[in-house]
Amino acid sequence: MRHSAAHVMAEAVQEMFPGAKFAIGPAIENGFYYDFDLPRPLTPDDLSAIEERMHEHVAAAEPFLRAEVSRASALEIFADQPYKLEIINDLPEDAPISTYRQGSFLDLCRGPHVEDTSRIGAFKLLNVAGAYWRGDENRPMLQRVYGTSWPTQKELEDYLYRLEEARKRDHRRIGRELGLFTFSEDVGPGIPLFFPKGEMVRHLMESYVRETQTRYGYQHVWTGHLVKEDLYRRSGHLEHYSDVMFPVMEDEEQRFRLKPMNCPSHMTLFNAQLHSYRELPLRFAEFATLYRYEKSGELFGLMRVRSMQMNDAHIYCTEEQFEQEFMAVIDLYRYYFEVFAIDKFVMRLSTHHRKGLGKKYIDNERLWLKTEEMVRRAMDNGGVPYVEAPDEAAFYGPKIDVQIWSAIGREFTLATNQVDFAVPARFDLVYTNREGKEETPLCIHRAPLSTHERMIGFLIEHFAGAFPVWLAPQQVRVIPITNDHNGYAAQLAQQLQAAGVRAEADLSSERMNAKIRDAQLMKTPYMLVVGDQEMANNTVSLRKRNGERVNSMDVGAFHALIKEKIESRALTL
Amino acid sequence: MRHSAAHVMAEAVQEMFPGAKFAIGPAIENGFYYDFDLPRPLTPDDLSAIEERMHEHVAAAEPFLRAEVSRASALEIFADQPYKLEIINDLPEDAPISTYRQGSFLDLCRGPHVEDTSRIGAFKLLNVAGAYWRGDENRPMLQRVYGTSWPTQKELEDYLYRLEEARKRDHRRIGRELGLFTFSEDVGPGIPLFFPKGEMVRHLMESYVRETQTRYGYQHVWTGHLVKEDLYRRSGHLEHYSDVMFPVMEDEEQRFRLKPMNCPSHMTLFNAQLHSYRELPLRFAEFATLYRYEKSGELFGLMRVRSMQMNDAHIYCTEEQFEQEFMAVIDLYRYYFEVFAIDKFVMRLSTHHRKGLGKKYIDNERLWLKTEEMVRRAMDNGGVPYVEAPDEAAFYGPKIDVQIWSAIGREFTLATNQVDFAVPARFDLVYTNREGKEETPLCIHRAPLSTHERMIGFLIEHFAGAFPVWLAPQQVRVIPITNDHNGYAAQLAQQLQAAGVRAEADLSSERMNAKIRDAQLMKTPYMLVVGDQEMANNTVSLRKRNGERVNSMDVGAFHALIKEKIESRALTL
Repeated sequence: MRHSAAHVMAEAVQEMFPGAKFAIGPAIENGFYYDFDLPRPLTPDDLSAIEERMHEHVAAAEPFLRAEVSRASALEIFADQPYKLEIINDLPEDAPISTYRQGSFLDLCRGPHVEDTSRIGAFKLLNVAGAYWRGDENRPMLQRVYGTSWPTQKELEDYLYRLEEARKRDHRRIGRELGLFTFSEDVGPGIPLFFPKGEMVRHLMESYVRETQTRYGYQHVWTGHLVKEDLYRRSGHLEHYSDVMFPVMEDEEQRFRLKPMNCPSHMTLFNAQLHSYRELPLRFAEFATLYRYEKSGELFGLMRVRSMQMNDAHIYCTEEQFEQEFMAVIDLYRYYFEVFAIDKFVMRLSTHHRKGLGKKYIDNERLWLKTEEMVRRAMDNGGVPYVEAPDEAAFYGPKIDVQIWSAIGREFTLATNQVDFAVPARFDLVYTNREGKEETPLCIHRAPLSTHERMIGFLIEHFAGAFPVWLAPQQVRVIPITNDHNGYAAQLAQQLQAAGVRAEADLSSERMNAKIRDAQLMKTPYMLVVGDQEMANNTVSLRKRNGERVNSMDVGAFHALIKEKIESRALTL
Repeated sequence: MRHSAAHVMAEAVQEMFPGAKFAIGPAIENGFYYDFDLPRPLTPDDLSAIEERMHEHVAAAEPFLRAEVSRASALEIFADQPYKLEIINDLPEDAPISTYRQGSFLDLCRGPHVEDTSRIGAFKLLNVAGAYWRGDENRPMLQRVYGTSWPTQKELEDYLYRLEEARKRDHRRIGRELGLFTFSEDVGPGIPLFFPKGEMVRHLMESYVRETQTRYGYQHVWTGHLVKEDLYRRSGHLEHYSDVMFPVMEDEEQRFRLKPMNCPSHMTLFNAQLHSYRELPLRFAEFATLYRYEKSGELFGLMRVRSMQMNDAHIYCTEEQFEQEFMAVIDLYRYYFEVFAIDKFVMRLSTHHRKGLGKKYIDNERLWLKTEEMVRRAMDNGGVPYVEAPDEAAFYGPKIDVQIWSAIGREFTLATNQVDFAVPARFDLVYTNREGKEETPLCIHRAPLSTHERMIGFLIEHFAGAFPVWLAPQQVRVIPITNDHNGYAAQLAQQLQAAGVRAEADLSSERMNAKIRDAQLMKTPYMLVVGDQEMANNTVSLRKRNGERVNSMDVGAFHALIKEKIESRALTL
């Protein structure tokens, strides 16, 4: 349906620009595009005109007609379409060649298509962007027109609403508006700098995760940000990940690398002490900043960065402990999803493929089959819904990827939960088992909330910047009605601060309404407006961020309210 | 006196080894040494024998006799002493040459000396170590005998006690015994790795400092661990500090450096938003890990490391705010000293020197004189005792160094409190003043507790590993008398954990006494021993780390005790 919409768009473009050259027009997620070579740049008005013509063709219900043609006649048919000619010439000798025609438009196309143009559903053209032919900057720059199409008008409207919401919720925009973070050319691309408010969100996230991990039996460690390159050679990471590592730091004595992951460091720490089976499972957690040298073109706000603080941990356990440990990790994911109101998620088990053994995968089929079976059994026994993705495992073992969806339905991939049966042995990790013999532990790598950066980016969009009370950088703004109430406002803010609440009195010279507007813009959960009456009765007029109001609220009652919301990490105000 | 002791030691050595060759024998801090070229290595027994002979010479009260000699006769006198000949030959042509004789020993020496050998005080020989002649590894290896000497026997004994305590309190030894931290050749020299218990001490320090800084009006920021090299060129740091920076990370696009300091990053962050005088003073604090490439020979435990987490902050303020801000910083130092029981400290004001202007110092004499005067006035007005050190300032302004002394009298230099009137202007930092005009703020750099690493190293020695309750990685060990009491012990530990106490029940198969010994070795502040009686009455038998005991203590009373000790950050148990 979406690919057919692309053909209908091309038909309209051909009518408007008879000399147009056509490149390709595939279906994509949520819609389609077509790359055109046109005599002039398209304007928004052009898009409307194209859309209008498309509607006419839809109304005409033109059938899509397929024809198989020989290479020779294909070359003849598309003689004045250089891009099509190039595609034809690149086809293997014996490849079948087909065309599709609807109305006056004939395209080189493998199909399939809907029956006729009336079946392309509800659609809308979105925008036009430059795109090099075949993605090669030495080839012509074409105009790529993007459209979206859906079976029903309702679905189209929902999608356009989500698109608009996503624009409004763009974490880069909200991050700027709320003064959370910034980037600087002087420091370097992909390295976010956090202003006090953004740092507060990071800090609150980290404190919360640390507290939770402690409750789940993790111990925290610290291993710094760089290691000798040899360690990554030994672990095998250099071979597999060197393209995402920052350049080497080298002098006569040594070669250092910034840490792109913690695994080898935690293994080193494990090895620095003797371990007995009594200590296992041993769960080493660390909030180390990791550095990955993503290409500058791929950097995107907080979602794709070069410096990332992962809520990382490695669990060392025996084979018997594996299932319980693995399920405890899955439980932890689910617990976090509840706290952050993430209702939709899917777990995806990536397994090895025989053909990659000894290449992209550690060459030990027995262990692959065994650990994959262990993971499946753990997921089945725990009633966790999951899908399998063959041939997508890490090089050292099977992994679980988790996809979550934000409040507006945007998909987001969390860091993975991985089983590692290879690296512990490479590092000679051992514990003394019950019989007094040395044995190698299994290792689980996990980071349920991904990195601070990506999670904060996700949560900004998910909550549209209106963080739950416990996570809001500022929780309360006290707003005096006139200067006469400044003293009372300051006193209220101080009392709240003393109770551990992030409160501030706005004693600036602005007018009250401007102060309320500013607190609203900053998404402050609670505003306390105070005047003569409140001063006289030791009360506040509470205005919540969501518009709710409570007049003449007792100060003690407000303290109790906010305390409860913070402690329960409530999603409501 | 100490130098004379070296001569007496040489006299004794000459008697025992008539063919001995003598190099040099200076006084040093707390004592003296002499470098000898001897036919065989000295044993501990030799040291005792030398000491005994020294006592005989002291009893004989041999006078020290000075003589001026010509170069020719000096060369003749020391004809069989090659090291002395070399020294004589290296003297300038016109230098006076003198000798000192006591008893049978004649030495080439400038003096002065005490009157006779009875005046060399109380002394003890400590150890012997290898030392190359003139520190050159291509010259002969000599035997250096170290001794200590003091005016009175009491002072000698105090010193030996401190020496022994220092050995016992060596932070590297205690760090290993308590399982706090380690180093790994695989990760790299000078990069400490913290085990869970050591990480907990770091975390507690950082949480405490963060809480304190928040109370003092600081805001915390985050700026990562690397920046483009150009930023350090612009700030002037590359020119002044490049020898302590880690090697560059370089690819076709960019040159990056690990951050050896936060200043340029905080300036960049300041510049990323507009500022009005109303926001000042603005206090940016960060616990960033800094990387300094100290020479591997200079690394020393946690005291001299390559990765360090500084409790850093930069205060941006107006000239009028400077004095108050500066004093608030000094107050903060003093407050920390109280919490950590640091009774002895000295502040040292390092100022510029005219001759360094334009070289090691920013070339603006007016601002140097002005800010130095501001600091002096602030210190005088605040009644802070300080000494002045001319020509030791930072390149951008005067600084205060703080020396503190540990419980056993070891000196330790804290990070500095510096005024910066140069870098803000280089970075075009501005705020809008009351008149709506742009003005450059002053900046104060400060890190009262130095780095986590050095401070923890200091505190380990200061407290001999017996951290105050609030800072102890484990606060309570519950010890059941027999297996029958395991359930009760586990329940007590759980209750304490739920109340936020770091408690653990020792349910291992060891005997009770072994468990108590282990808890003592780990310097756990409180042991709760529980048996039939305690179970029956819901009480505990409390044994404190310092040996105090409280039998049949109500569980609630113990909860109240530990809560009070933690919250007040008490130094007592």
